[in-house]
Amino acid sequence: MAGGKPGLVLFTSNLERMCEPIAERFDVLRLWSEGDAAIRERGAGVVAILTSGRDRIDAALMDRLPKLRLIVAVGAGYEGVDVSAAKLREITVANAGDTHSGDVADHAVALTLAVIHRILPNDAWVRSGTWETHGYPPNRRALSAERFGILGLGRIGRAIASRLAPFGAEIGWWGPTDRPAGWPRHESALALAAWCTTLIVAARGDTRALVDRRMIDAVGRDGCIINVARGQVIDEDALIAALRDGRLGGAGLDVFCEEPAPPARWANVPNVVLSPHAAGVTVEAMARLRDTAVRNLKTALEGGAVVNEILSR
Amino acid sequence: MAGGKPGLVLFTSNLERMCEPIAERFDVLRLWSEGDAAIRERGAGVVAILTSGRDRIDAALMDRLPKLRLIVAVGAGYEGVDVSAAKLREITVANAGDTHSGDVADHAVALTLAVIHRILPNDAWVRSGTWETHGYPPNRRALSAERFGILGLGRIGRAIASRLAPFGAEIGWWGPTDRPAGWPRHESALALAAWCTTLIVAARGDTRALVDRRMIDAVGRDGCIINVARGQVIDEDALIAALRDGRLGGAGLDVFCEEPAPPARWANVPNVVLSPHAAGVTVEAMARLRDTAVRNLKTALEGGAVVNEILSR
Repeated sequence: MAGGKPGLVLFTSNLERMCEPIAERFDVLRLWSEGDAAIRERGAGVVAILTSGRDRIDAALMDRLPKLRLIVAVGAGYEGVDVSAAKLREITVANAGDTHSGDVADHAVALTLAVIHRILPNDAWVRSGTWETHGYPPNRRALSAERFGILGLGRIGRAIASRLAPFGAEIGWWGPTDRPAGWPRHESALALAAWCTTLIVAARGDTRALVDRRMIDAVGRDGCIINVARGQVIDEDALIAALRDGRLGGAGLDVFCEEPAPPARWANVPNVVLSPHAAGVTVEAMARLRDTAVRNLKTALEGGAVVNEILSR
Repeated sequence: MAGGKPGLVLFTSNLERMCEPIAERFDVLRLWSEGDAAIRERGAGVVAILTSGRDRIDAALMDRLPKLRLIVAVGAGYEGVDVSAAKLREITVANAGDTHSGDVADHAVALTLAVIHRILPNDAWVRSGTWETHGYPPNRRALSAERFGILGLGRIGRAIASRLAPFGAEIGWWGPTDRPAGWPRHESALALAAWCTTLIVAARGDTRALVDRRMIDAVGRDGCIINVARGQVIDEDALIAALRDGRLGGAGLDVFCEEPAPPARWANVPNVVLSPHAAGVTVEAMARLRDTAVRNLKTALEGGAVVNEILSR
């Protein structure tokens, strides 16, 4: 415990700005530069972890941090955290709560419209002079003729549906739990994929490869897939193959199995709009996330109740 | 009058598909290939003109077509048509009516979100590997923090406002005629530009250079301008200069003073999303537009009432 300060683990450098107002009250273990040695040498003093939610925080790590009492995920996701293992050890897990589902939904709609309205190829069409030499691009399908399938009707999924409603398209959804909603729930994820023209993935981050090759083929050559959840929710190899083969019409992706997304993997994949995990990252949301993270980290020093405690998976 | 058929004037080749089901009943004058000679030689038999709305159809042309009784604009705009001159000569002018204001509004929203959510630079950020080497792009401003100013609250402007409403931003508008609306009307176009963060131009096509340098500077370095009306509504030289100087934050343009837009004019203009006048061009709208145009052209042959007659400017 350096200088007697309680320890705080950060996995990645971008988390520094999220705890900046309170960082000097902690001995900060910067794992991206200090490596495992930091845990070995100063792990005994660690009381809190600040995580993107994707960092792997399992029972083995918890057992090396005997004073750990709080794990704070800066965003909505916390799929890297073994919540059950934390509960067993009386470690509190908290996330950001609903501080940015509206922003993520906004970005889902932005990607959806970008794909359907061909924002990238149309811009290139003008810039390359193709408009001059070949006339207008092919007609797009009207949004009002779309059938939007929303996979996962949590806060983000609902916010997406309410934003899409005035465009006049049909909206349907599927999620593991039936719940009252203004839109019909389909029988299964696969049934939703077969029905919709655009599948918008807003499922929980721990639903691995829910969107598999069969579902991708069910969306089909005239359809597209938008993902603002986590890369792992889609079988990404199958997605890339379907785009290459023309079995899937298009995609808009804010999340990837590997992040940052390796450019070579996407270089020759057609009809895909790429976004660097930017859905929730607004000036306003970041200020709210930081305030929440700092407030929760303060409880590791001063006691008190955390906000947005995760009670179970 | 070739083969005794009444004449139909087309200015541009893309109009052929809009009258294809009825073309064989007319002697079609193809001005883009036949030139003025067609008017000189066969103008006496012309009963109808099919126009994009932008073709110049003035008193002088009408006087060369003594049997002209109908001018049909395939879309919503008809700014090239001298409606007063037509009325004096008992020539009926008709447009498409409200067959695609929803599609145009969809595209206005698509361009708005593309600019604010940085769809183009973010895609390039991933593809260039900048995400890998430099981390995340700068945070964007939340849509809910925007103030959308809609210039022109006709059918398209209203449709834009209703689509933007669920995103939670403030919405205001200005138009020359006060009318009841769910959103406040500002005192002037300039007042709207000064108030808003994003100015969305849905004004009538004949309001030339309404968005001038003063208005562009009022929108300012943190703002952006979207145009789905007509290129001439904006002082395009002033817009380009403001984007180059960083006095305007961004733009999304579906329409241009010169169309097709010359690529060289836009090559080094930063922060602009270009779209090849595609707002209203959906498969569904084109089918409706063609049906309406064909139905109206039929009245030139068989009599009856045209639909969507323009009674005055």
